Amino acid sequence: MTRLNHIGIAVRDPETLARVLGLLGLSKTHDENVPDQGVRTHFFPALEGQQDSGYFPQIEILEVLDPEGTVARFIEKRGPGVHHLSFEVKRGELDSLCSKLQAAGVQLIYHEPRPGAHGMRVNFIHPKSSGGVLLEITERGTE
Amino acid sequence: MTRLNHIGIAVRDPETLARVLGLLGLSKTHDENVPDQGVRTHFFPALEGQQDSGYFPQIEILEVLDPEGTVARFIEKRGPGVHHLSFEVKRGELDSLCSKLQAAGVQLIYHEPRPGAHGMRVNFIHPKSSGGVLLEITERGTE
Repeated sequence: MTRLNHIGIAVRDPETLARVLGLLGLSKTHDENVPDQGVRTHFFPALEGQQDSGYFPQIEILEVLDPEGTVARFIEKRGPGVHHLSFEVKRGELDSLCSKLQAAGVQLIYHEPRPGAHGMRVNFIHPKSSGGVLLEITERGTE
Repeated sequence: MTRLNHIGIAVRDPETLARVLGLLGLSKTHDENVPDQGVRTHFFPALEGQQDSGYFPQIEILEVLDPEGTVARFIEKRGPGVHHLSFEVKRGELDSLCSKLQAAGVQLIYHEPRPGAHGMRVNFIHPKSSGGVLLEITERGTE
């Protein structure tokens, strides 16, 4: 079962975006450093009043920590905006999804899934294979 | 009550993105021309197996029809990728949200909401006021 997990937005000014999300009624529930991507992530469920009950996709603000990291380079090249969409599959299904995509000629970024935020395992579909948008595919880890 | 309604993705090649969404298990439920934006929109609920039951945000593929339209110009300038995130408020609450945002110094694109896809009324928060991402705000129309 695939479902949208979050929308990663790369910005130079995380406070401005966080303020507007707050005016829309959204609240931050979690933040975490992801050294592999050179960012601090800030998660806002994309539903007013939603905290930890039920399931709803989240907005993930990507705050640059490493000016040489992939997210910083994305902003440098394209300006701030949505960096990736993340789709979650059931735990244990990520490797078979990766195989299915590769068999269909879809290019993935990593040979093997890597650790992401929230203890997830993640890989990415290359924008060349999606018409131009970076798509993350992810499953919960074993922790 | 504000909630994420859809993620609008502007691409040169809608078939490639639609194919990858299909490989992820997502199915198109609706398409519609939006002449005001110079596009044909293709909606895919961002949840495998989701058709019309329950509520879940959708992926909206924006296929360019008018090469001089705003979406075509976005692709020309920034390349393909996410064009906007759309947040829906309850019917009857859009005008008061617009007033609240303007009172907080947030710049909106239109003086008055305009007609969008699905008979919605829509306005946009200017990327200058959000740290760089175009945010649509919308409510269901009276039809």
